[in-house]
Amino acid sequence: MPQSLYQQLLTLVRKSALLGSCGSVLSWDRETYMPTGGNEHRANQLSLLAGVAHEWSTLPKIGELLDQLGDSELTDAADSDTAVNIREIRRTYDRSRKLPQRLVEEISRVTALAQHHWAEARSNSDFRAFAPWLEQIITLKREEAAAVGFAEGGEPYDALLDEYEPGASSADVAAVFDALRQEVVPLLDAIKGARNVPSRALLSQHFPAAQQAMLGREAAAAIGFDFRKGRLDVTTHPFCSGFGPGDCRLTTRYDESFFSSAFFGTLHESGHGMYEQGLREDAFGTPLGSSVSLGIHESQSRMWENLVGRSRAFWQHFYPRAQQLFPDALSSSSLDDFHFAINAVSPSFIRVEADEVTYNLHIMLRFDLERDLISGKLKPNDVPEAWNSRFTSDFGITPANDTEGCLQDIHWSAGLLGYFPTYALGNMYASQFYAAAEAELGDLQQMFAKGEFMPLLDWLREHIHYHGQRFTASRLVEVVTGMSLSNKPLMQQLNARFRPLYGI
Amino acid sequence: MPQSLYQQLLTLVRKSALLGSCGSVLSWDRETYMPTGGNEHRANQLSLLAGVAHEWSTLPKIGELLDQLGDSELTDAADSDTAVNIREIRRTYDRSRKLPQRLVEEISRVTALAQHHWAEARSNSDFRAFAPWLEQIITLKREEAAAVGFAEGGEPYDALLDEYEPGASSADVAAVFDALRQEVVPLLDAIKGARNVPSRALLSQHFPAAQQAMLGREAAAAIGFDFRKGRLDVTTHPFCSGFGPGDCRLTTRYDESFFSSAFFGTLHESGHGMYEQGLREDAFGTPLGSSVSLGIHESQSRMWENLVGRSRAFWQHFYPRAQQLFPDALSSSSLDDFHFAINAVSPSFIRVEADEVTYNLHIMLRFDLERDLISGKLKPNDVPEAWNSRFTSDFGITPANDTEGCLQDIHWSAGLLGYFPTYALGNMYASQFYAAAEAELGDLQQMFAKGEFMPLLDWLREHIHYHGQRFTASRLVEVVTGMSLSNKPLMQQLNARFRPLYGI
Repeated sequence: MPQSLYQQLLTLVRKSALLGSCGSVLSWDRETYMPTGGNEHRANQLSLLAGVAHEWSTLPKIGELLDQLGDSELTDAADSDTAVNIREIRRTYDRSRKLPQRLVEEISRVTALAQHHWAEARSNSDFRAFAPWLEQIITLKREEAAAVGFAEGGEPYDALLDEYEPGASSADVAAVFDALRQEVVPLLDAIKGARNVPSRALLSQHFPAAQQAMLGREAAAAIGFDFRKGRLDVTTHPFCSGFGPGDCRLTTRYDESFFSSAFFGTLHESGHGMYEQGLREDAFGTPLGSSVSLGIHESQSRMWENLVGRSRAFWQHFYPRAQQLFPDALSSSSLDDFHFAINAVSPSFIRVEADEVTYNLHIMLRFDLERDLISGKLKPNDVPEAWNSRFTSDFGITPANDTEGCLQDIHWSAGLLGYFPTYALGNMYASQFYAAAEAELGDLQQMFAKGEFMPLLDWLREHIHYHGQRFTASRLVEVVTGMSLSNKPLMQQLNARFRPLYGI
Repeated sequence: MPQSLYQQLLTLVRKSALLGSCGSVLSWDRETYMPTGGNEHRANQLSLLAGVAHEWSTLPKIGELLDQLGDSELTDAADSDTAVNIREIRRTYDRSRKLPQRLVEEISRVTALAQHHWAEARSNSDFRAFAPWLEQIITLKREEAAAVGFAEGGEPYDALLDEYEPGASSADVAAVFDALRQEVVPLLDAIKGARNVPSRALLSQHFPAAQQAMLGREAAAAIGFDFRKGRLDVTTHPFCSGFGPGDCRLTTRYDESFFSSAFFGTLHESGHGMYEQGLREDAFGTPLGSSVSLGIHESQSRMWENLVGRSRAFWQHFYPRAQQLFPDALSSSSLDDFHFAINAVSPSFIRVEADEVTYNLHIMLRFDLERDLISGKLKPNDVPEAWNSRFTSDFGITPANDTEGCLQDIHWSAGLLGYFPTYALGNMYASQFYAAAEAELGDLQQMFAKGEFMPLLDWLREHIHYHGQRFTASRLVEVVTGMSLSNKPLMQQLNARFRPLYGI
């Protein structure tokens, strides 16, 4: 009897997820191939799908089934498949039920339009053109936060953060960030005063886009992204979207006068994509077939981008091929020069192109601004000023315009407030997982130097991807690494890579 | 009061159309960019959307509203916007209500999978691999025909034909086709015996795909396809899909050793696309914002492909540009040589590459085979034999394999039985419309020679596109041309173009 109720429950949530995955296709198309004339109709389509998916995921029938299953034998073993699905369906159901249908549709419609206006404003560096949209979005997200609510002693931003990193609180995140800042800043200062200096010019030569695409694809395939079940396309802002079993889409962008953005962007999105491809296909649409949190998702992308992709061993394997593809730019540079160049550290404006040492400072800035926007302390119109003044104080440089300042990221236009902190959490998780994998598998760098990436990927699949949402993020990191969230492995790895390079 | 009921009715049908347009995006993506691994999940997505769209378009509430509006003042003036919408919503509602939800979902699911198997079978010329799918589809379409029903004295095939060419009957179509055949065969015989012969080699030289794409785009834009509201991509089987206001997608395929397929395919799909782009955007999702029938749709594509695109005047304008793009292939051939070559007539295997004289014979073959498949007279397994024997008797040549025989078209795998005859109807409509336009606008060829295509497009927009489904196909052709469906203008135009070329 509980089994039959459980199957009814899964049928309902799968149907809603299947509809949601239709929306993913439409969103991907909007970013990749849709002609500009289709913008308004696409917003209507996405709003309809979001509304119906929300309607379906909040059916009272789901609540009834959850009530009936809540203390059945299916929840006896806390980490069993059935108990996990029931626990997580309950959590998202309760959250969704708090959101009025009207608000869900409105957020979907407004953000679909706003992303288009953001893209235009960004390319014209015209914050004023985007300001009314940001204003609308902040109003809607404040409404969302109020509807969802938060624990006693918390703040409205918690309600938004919880969507991306379930269980995390603003105060906890702020504490972890502060601790991290205290170790990052001295490292950064030491680097600024170092005598060794990487060649900046090396990566800013001419790298033809077609050859960049070739190298990016080869590397993505080599580390394990399955192109029979995915694609790589070009967009303004790189992303990864898993449509469901057998179909995961990556995007990147090519800058012919800078090597790193497309290549490391491709590795980054491949890391996300391999997580999506590692989820249980038979569990699609249920918590067991879904990623844990954005922080855990980001741990996968950052691991492949940085811990693997910026290691010397990775380039022992790939540098000859890179030299072959870019003979003019690379033939007279050594592996060591190249490795130092891709690990150059210095304050810069664009988050997605930031080095690993300064990256988390970019996140802390956004985290603090978002909290203030949601609390009402910061008005949307005042964002450029707040951004620039904080940026100057953290980085010692000031954005010349909003394109390299507060307009650089798509997130706010897409309504993704509460999302940014997961990037920095991901960096910390990545280092913890990597250290645990190495403890079990032995010298990973030795494997990379021989082009062997499957041992690491298989380890990630077994310990992380396969489990879907069996464990919450904070428990997963404990189960897998034996320790709770910490900046120690991250700082160890940063120190181990950057101190020798810079001779400090 | 009726106005408020009418608005409720429109809201319901628009919502259903909006959902249907989401399915169009997913179908387009499946043909253009989806990795093969996504096939099964995509079938599930499309089946869900088709099922829900069907559910929404058959809501009893729509029936109630139609009943209440049926004899209201909104239907007093037969061709008024309100009367037209009520009439046509009633027609599709009644049809849809006859189809069980289960059958709709099953057809969507099976055809989504079958198209994939068709594509594989086609590339391996392996009918046996496709046969079980065809068998399933015929069974489902027979079920559909039985559920929909047909007029007394008719046949099950009428029920399928009616979906694409509302109001047409198999017997009427057969009669028109017989009359056409009696005039086409003598023309073809005369051409076979003619002394003048076009250069076959001219169009079979090397035409680089990139330059073909450039010329195709330039021509599509020149005749009036708006690329701000549309795209052109590459697929195995060319098609046009209008997603809704501001977004219409065309596809084509490039054969580097044959000029005509991509170029005239692009003009053809542009003709469809300009019809879609000419529909009233404010009437999206209602009959007034929808195309009349596939026959009328095809009249637009065939007009631009053949009556415009294969005219000497069109190439007076475009040939210099073609010579510039393909200097190796074309610089030593005259405009007259080229014009004769693109109008070469001879029996050939592939419908979409057939000349205008033999084209309708390809359709008649499919029409007769489909009727027999639906009546049960022909078994799916026997299709290759039936195809080849009829082909040999009509064309005097025999397909060497099923890729150039019964596997060439996507239609059956997509469940589109009853669709083919609309191509030949479209040819006749096109000639009738073209003659009427010329009678009103003066010498169109003189305009084409100067690159002026807007007068014709504007005429089509005003007389055809703008009206959506105001008139049924058979009435539209009477309203616009003053005569009912006829093969006379088509035969006049064929004789006028081909007799001088062939010197007969």
